[in-house]
Amino acid sequence: MIYNIAILGASGYTGAELIRLIANHSHMKIKALGGNSKAGQSMASVFPHLRHLDLPDLVTMEEIDFSGIDLCFCALPHKTSQEVIAALPKNLKIVDLSADFRLRNPADYEKWYGNAHAALAQQEEAVYGLTEFYREEIRAARLVAGTGCNAATGQYALRPLIAAGVIDLDEIILDLKCAVSGAGRALKENLLHAELSEGYHAYAVGGTHRHLGEFDQEFSALAGRPVQVQFTPHLVPANRGILATCYVKGDAQAIHDTLKTAYAAEPFIEVLPFGEAPSTRHIRGSNFCHVGVCADRISGRAIVIAALDNLTKGSSGQALQNANLLLDIEETEGLMMAPLFP
Amino acid sequence: MIYNIAILGASGYTGAELIRLIANHSHMKIKALGGNSKAGQSMASVFPHLRHLDLPDLVTMEEIDFSGIDLCFCALPHKTSQEVIAALPKNLKIVDLSADFRLRNPADYEKWYGNAHAALAQQEEAVYGLTEFYREEIRAARLVAGTGCNAATGQYALRPLIAAGVIDLDEIILDLKCAVSGAGRALKENLLHAELSEGYHAYAVGGTHRHLGEFDQEFSALAGRPVQVQFTPHLVPANRGILATCYVKGDAQAIHDTLKTAYAAEPFIEVLPFGEAPSTRHIRGSNFCHVGVCADRISGRAIVIAALDNLTKGSSGQALQNANLLLDIEETEGLMMAPLFP
Amino acid sequence: MIYNIAILGASGYTGAELIRLIANHSHMKIKALGGNSKAGQSMASVFPHLRHLDLPDLVTMEEIDFSGIDLCFCALPHKTSQEVIAALPKNLKIVDLSADFRLRNPADYEKWYGNAHAALAQQEEAVYGLTEFYREEIRAARLVAGTGCNAATGQYALRPLIAAGVIDLDEIILDLKCAVSGAGRALKENLLHAELSEGYHAYAVGGTHRHLGEFDQEFSALAGRPVQVQFTPHLVPANRGILATCYVKGDAQAIHDTLKTAYAAEPFIEVLPFGEAPSTRHIRGSNFCHVGVCADRISGRAIVIAALDNLTKGSSGQALQNANLLLDIEETEGLMMAPLFP
Amino acid sequence: MIYNIAILGASGYTGAELIRLIANHSHMKIKALGGNSKAGQSMASVFPHLRHLDLPDLVTMEEIDFSGIDLCFCALPHKTSQEVIAALPKNLKIVDLSADFRLRNPADYEKWYGNAHAALAQQEEAVYGLTEFYREEIRAARLVAGTGCNAATGQYALRPLIAAGVIDLDEIILDLKCAVSGAGRALKENLLHAELSEGYHAYAVGGTHRHLGEFDQEFSALAGRPVQVQFTPHLVPANRGILATCYVKGDAQAIHDTLKTAYAAEPFIEVLPFGEAPSTRHIRGSNFCHVGVCADRISGRAIVIAALDNLTKGSSGQALQNANLLLDIEETEGLMMAPLFP
Repeated sequence: MIYNIAILGASGYTGAELIRLIANHSHMKIKALGGNSKAGQSMASVFPHLRHLDLPDLVTMEEIDFSGIDLCFCALPHKTSQEVIAALPKNLKIVDLSADFRLRNPADYEKWYGNAHAALAQQEEAVYGLTEFYREEIRAARLVAGTGCNAATGQYALRPLIAAGVIDLDEIILDLKCAVSGAGRALKENLLHAELSEGYHAYAVGGTHRHLGEFDQEFSALAGRPVQVQFTPHLVPANRGILATCYVKGDAQAIHDTLKTAYAAEPFIEVLPFGEAPSTRHIRGSNFCHVGVCADRISGRAIVIAALDNLTKGSSGQALQNANLLLDIEETEGLMMAPLFP
Repeated sequence: MIYNIAILGASGYTGAELIRLIANHSHMKIKALGGNSKAGQSMASVFPHLRHLDLPDLVTMEEIDFSGIDLCFCALPHKTSQEVIAALPKNLKIVDLSADFRLRNPADYEKWYGNAHAALAQQEEAVYGLTEFYREEIRAARLVAGTGCNAATGQYALRPLIAAGVIDLDEIILDLKCAVSGAGRALKENLLHAELSEGYHAYAVGGTHRHLGEFDQEFSALAGRPVQVQFTPHLVPANRGILATCYVKGDAQAIHDTLKTAYAAEPFIEVLPFGEAPSTRHIRGSNFCHVGVCADRISGRAIVIAALDNLTKGSSGQALQNANLLLDIEETEGLMMAPLFP
Repeated sequence: MIYNIAILGASGYTGAELIRLIANHSHMKIKALGGNSKAGQSMASVFPHLRHLDLPDLVTMEEIDFSGIDLCFCALPHKTSQEVIAALPKNLKIVDLSADFRLRNPADYEKWYGNAHAALAQQEEAVYGLTEFYREEIRAARLVAGTGCNAATGQYALRPLIAAGVIDLDEIILDLKCAVSGAGRALKENLLHAELSEGYHAYAVGGTHRHLGEFDQEFSALAGRPVQVQFTPHLVPANRGILATCYVKGDAQAIHDTLKTAYAAEPFIEVLPFGEAPSTRHIRGSNFCHVGVCADRISGRAIVIAALDNLTKGSSGQALQNANLLLDIEETEGLMMAPLFP
Repeated sequence: MIYNIAILGASGYTGAELIRLIANHSHMKIKALGGNSKAGQSMASVFPHLRHLDLPDLVTMEEIDFSGIDLCFCALPHKTSQEVIAALPKNLKIVDLSADFRLRNPADYEKWYGNAHAALAQQEEAVYGLTEFYREEIRAARLVAGTGCNAATGQYALRPLIAAGVIDLDEIILDLKCAVSGAGRALKENLLHAELSEGYHAYAVGGTHRHLGEFDQEFSALAGRPVQVQFTPHLVPANRGILATCYVKGDAQAIHDTLKTAYAAEPFIEVLPFGEAPSTRHIRGSNFCHVGVCADRISGRAIVIAALDNLTKGSSGQALQNANLLLDIEETEGLMMAPLFP
C-alpha cells in the first residue's frame, strides 16, 4: 500500500527533512510540494542535497489537488498554518509542524503568540503530537499538532517524573542548549555564520520563550495542578541538536528507575545507564532521544539530561512517526536510520 | 537471504560508518566486530550513536570464528591490513578499506608506503574498488581494495576525460579540500578541535601525498602512457566531505558532455548542469558524488569539481557497494539514503 | 622600566596566550621559555602564530638562569607545578596558572586532586588570584595562584550577591558552558575535531568537577558558613569562552543593583543593562567579563549570566593582571585589547 | 599628536574591525561613526564586543561635521562609496575600503561592476592601497583605495614573481579559499550558519569574480603586457582568513629566493622557510601575511601559498596601515598585535 503525500512549506528545513525521511519510506510517495515563495522552482535548486530524488516541483498551495492526497504535512510558519489548515478539505489527514495547534486553550494561544486563533474548530480537534504519550489519541485523530522541539526535549526528560510524583513540582529548572536549525531558514543577522559560530549565549531568558506554553499545559495536566518550570534556552554553534539539562529535587535512583520503566518499550527513547550523560552528537540525524540521570553531590537533587535532533525527533521525524500512526503503518517505518557520527 | 558479516577495525570511523550503513541493509547481519585495542568493550561505549543497535561486543581478531562469515570488511590501518588479510581463510570474501591493496605493483607500494608488501599473493589477486569503473572485475573478485578517498574524488572528476582524450594529460592540477574525518580517530595534535577549527591549510604540498600512487597508476593505465597530475590537499574545518577542484585544458562543453555520457546510468554519480559547482554540504552522509563543470574565461580551459563524503562514497559506502556486488545483491542496497542537510 | 619574564610551560595554550599578551606589554620582556617536552624547539615551530616575535627558544627548566628574572609565570599541569615552584628561588615573584595553589586547605586539595600537596609552605603563602576581590593581598604577595577558569566565571556572577546576602545560599545552580581550549593541548579522543564539533554534552555532572573546591572555599568564606552550589559544566564546539548561567533565588532588581555597585570601578567587568544576556562572542580574545541579570517569570527568582574568555580573563589575562600588581605596573597594562569579532 | 577620525559604514564588519584596531592606536581618536541604517543606535547595541569603549553613537552621514576630522575611513558598499566620497570635503584625507577606486580605468570599473563610475575625478586621484608596493604614492596621496581582500592575498604571493620574471605569465592558477566574513554582514541565505558550516564549495568559478579586475590591472602593469590568471574562490566554514594556493611554472628555489628578498624588510609579510605551507589559523586577527613556497614533484613547477586575515591585512588593517602613512605616523602603529590562536 502506497499513500500519497503532500508537504506544504517544503522550502524550509523541516520540509526538506520530511522529504529526506520519506525518501526511504516504503509506503509513502510525495505527490505535491507546496512552497509559495519559491513556487515554480525545482527541489534540486532549492535543496541541492535532494537532487537525486524524483520530486515534483514546488507549487503554490492553490495549485495542489488534494483529492488524491492521503495525508498532508504542514511545515508552515505559525499563524499562516492555521489559516491554511482551516481551508483544507475537512477529511484530509494532517500533521502540522507549526505552533498553531499545540495549545488547547485559545486564551493560552493568544497569550503566547499574540494573536487570536483563527481556526478554533481545528484547534479543538487537534491532538498533541508527542507520540509516546498520545499514541492512542493520535491513531484516532485527523489532525495532529507537532510539538515544539524544545518542548519535546524537556518533556521526554520530565513527564514520567511529574506523572510519578518523584520530583518536587515547584523546583524544576530546565537549562536548554539548542542548535541553529531550530530557528529555521529565515534571514536574521544573528543566524549568520559570522555572528553565530564560535560563541554561545542565552536568549528568551526568564520565561518568555513560547514553548513554555506547552510545558505549562502539559505538566499542569499531568500533575493535576498548576506547574511552572524555569526555562532558559541557549543558542550554540551547531546545526542540529537540543540538549535539555534539568535540575530537579528528588531521589536520583528513583528518577532513573521511573524513566527506565516508562520508556522500556519505546523504540526511540534510550535511557542511558545511571550516571551517564547524553550528547547531541550521538543522535544527530536520527529519530532517537537519549536520556541520562545523574545524582548531584547535594543529597535529594538530581540532573536529568535529554538529547535529540530538533529537525528529526523534535520535528519532522516526530511528524512522520505520527503520520505512520494516522495511516496505520508500522510506527517506526522510515525512521530507524542510525545517527550520523562524526 | 541474509549474509553474515564481520568487520575488522570496528572502533574507527570507517568501521562505525559501515555499521551505520549495514544497520539499514536488508540482506546483511553483523556477526562479529574486531577491534584489538578496544576488545571487550561494547559498541555502545565506543560509539554511543550506535547504542540502539543490537551489536556484538568488540573482540580480538583471534576470537572471531570466520567459518560462518560470508564477507569480511577490513577497516584496519595499512600495513596491519595486509598481515591480517594474508592470514584470513583463503575463500573468505573480503572488502579491504586500507591502502594495502590499491597499488598493483609491489614497487609502487614500497615507493609510496615505505615498506615491502607482506602479502604479495593477495596484492596480485585484489581488484581496485572504484565501483563504477571496475564493476565486472569486482563481481568476479574475492578481495576488493577500497580506494583512497581523495583518489576516488579525483578519479570521478577525471577518468572519463582522460579515457576520452578531451583534456591535456600533462596539465592537470587537482586542488583538493578535505574534511578531518579522513584522518581517522588517531590522537594527533593537529586534529584537535582547538587546532583545526576556524582555519585551513595545505599539507603534503608538491606531490608527496600517497594517493598520488593511485592517480599515477590509474590515469597512466587509462591513457596508455605515463600521466602525472599535480595534487595539493588542504585540510578544512569540517568533519565530512572532499571537494576536488581540477584545473584542466580542454573544451569545457566537450568535458561536460563526456561526463554526462559516462555517468548517465550511474545511480550515485550526479553530473550537475553545465556551469554549476557542487558543495560538500549536499552529499554529506550519503553515497552520492556530485560533479560540476565550468568554463574558464581563458579559452580552452575548464574547471571540473567533484564532491563526495569521504566516509561514505569515499570509503565505507564504496565498500558496501562493492560488497553488494561480491554477494550478488542489488548494488544500491543500503545506500540510497539522502544526504543530511543542514 | 622593563621587567624580565620567564614562562614555564610555554608550549601549552595558556603559555602561548601569555606570550601573545606580553608581546604588546610596555614593561615586560620575555627572557626564558620553559617547555620540557619541546625543549630545543623554536616557538615559531611550536606556535607558528608567534613567528613574527623575537622569542627565546624553548628550554628545559633546568637550563633557565632565574637570577635575572623578575617574575615567572608557571603554566604547567597541576602536581608538576607544585614540585617546580617549591624548587624555584624563594624570592622569585611567581604567578601560577595551575590548580596547585588555589585551595588553601591541604585536605581540600587532597580531596579534589587525589594526592597530598607537596609544597605546603608555598600553598600557605599563595594568594588566590581573583584580582578584583584580592587586589591588595596580591599586591603584597610573592606567589599568586591563578583561579580555575570556570571558577572565575561563576565567582564574577555570584560573589557580590553572596557577600551582600541578596540570594538564597542553599539554592544556587550554576549551569556552565565552556569551550574546548580550557581542556588544553592534551591528546584526548574527545577533544578531536571530529568528536567535538557539531555537538555538545555535559560532563562531570552532579558535583565532581574540581573547580567546585574553589566555589566551596570562596563562597563559604564569603558567607561565613558552608555554601555548596550545584555545578554542571558542558563542553560546546567553540575554542574560547565560558558562559555561566546561574539560577538564583532573590530579587532580580536588587541583584542587578548589587552587581552594578560592586563592579562600578572595575576596568574589566561590564554589567549589562538589566534584562540583557551576554554572549561569549563579545569577549573572545579579551580580558573583559560581561555579566547580565534577568528576572524569571516566577517571582523571587533570577538568572545571572557571566561570560569571559577562558584563556584570557579566565587564565593568562588574569595572570598578567596579577603580575602587573606584583610588579607595581598599571593593572590594565597589556590587557585593553578589544575582543575579536567576528 | 592625536588625529580625529571618522568612520563611515561603522555598522559593518570592516567598520567594527577598524574600531577594534584604532582602540589601541596611540595617535587616533574616533570622533564620528556613520551608519545610515542604524543611525541613532549606540555601538554597544550594534557591536556588543565594543561596549567597553567610549564611542560616539552612530549617526547619518549628513550629521557629521567633517571640519574637525583629519581622516575618514569609508567602509561603505561599492557604488554608495563613490557617491559619498565625491561629496566629501575635497581636502579631507580618505581611506576607502570599498571596490570603487581600485580600478584605474573607468571602462574596467564598468566591465566588472556593471555601472558607470560616478566619481571620475576621485577615481583618477586615488592610489591603489597595497601598502608594500605603493608606499611612496600612498604617503603623498589624499585618497587611498583599499584593495580587494582576495586580490591582496594573491598579489602578496605573486607580485614579486611577476616583476622578477621567474614564473610563466600565461600559466598562473590561483585557487583561493576564503572565510565568510569577507561577504560582510548582509542577510543572504547562503551565509546562514546552517547553510554554511560543515561544508564548502567553489563560487564565481571560471573567471567571473570581480577581484579579477584587480589582478588583471596590477599583474599586467607589472609585466608590461597583458596577464590573465585563472582564479577560483571557495567559501569555507570559518569566519576569518584567506588562503591563496597558487600553481605556477618556474624554479621553486628561485621563487622562494625572490620572495625572501622582496619582503626582507617588510614588517607584516613573513616568508616561511622553503617547503613550509602557511595556515590561516596562524594569522587570525592580525595584520600579518604568511607566504610559503613548495616545489612540485614535476620539475619546473611550484606552489606558492599566501595566508592573511581578510578583515585585518585584507581590509581594515591595511586601511589603518595606509592611514598611518597618510598622517605621517609610524606605519606599524596599532597593528602589531599577535594573531589569536587557538
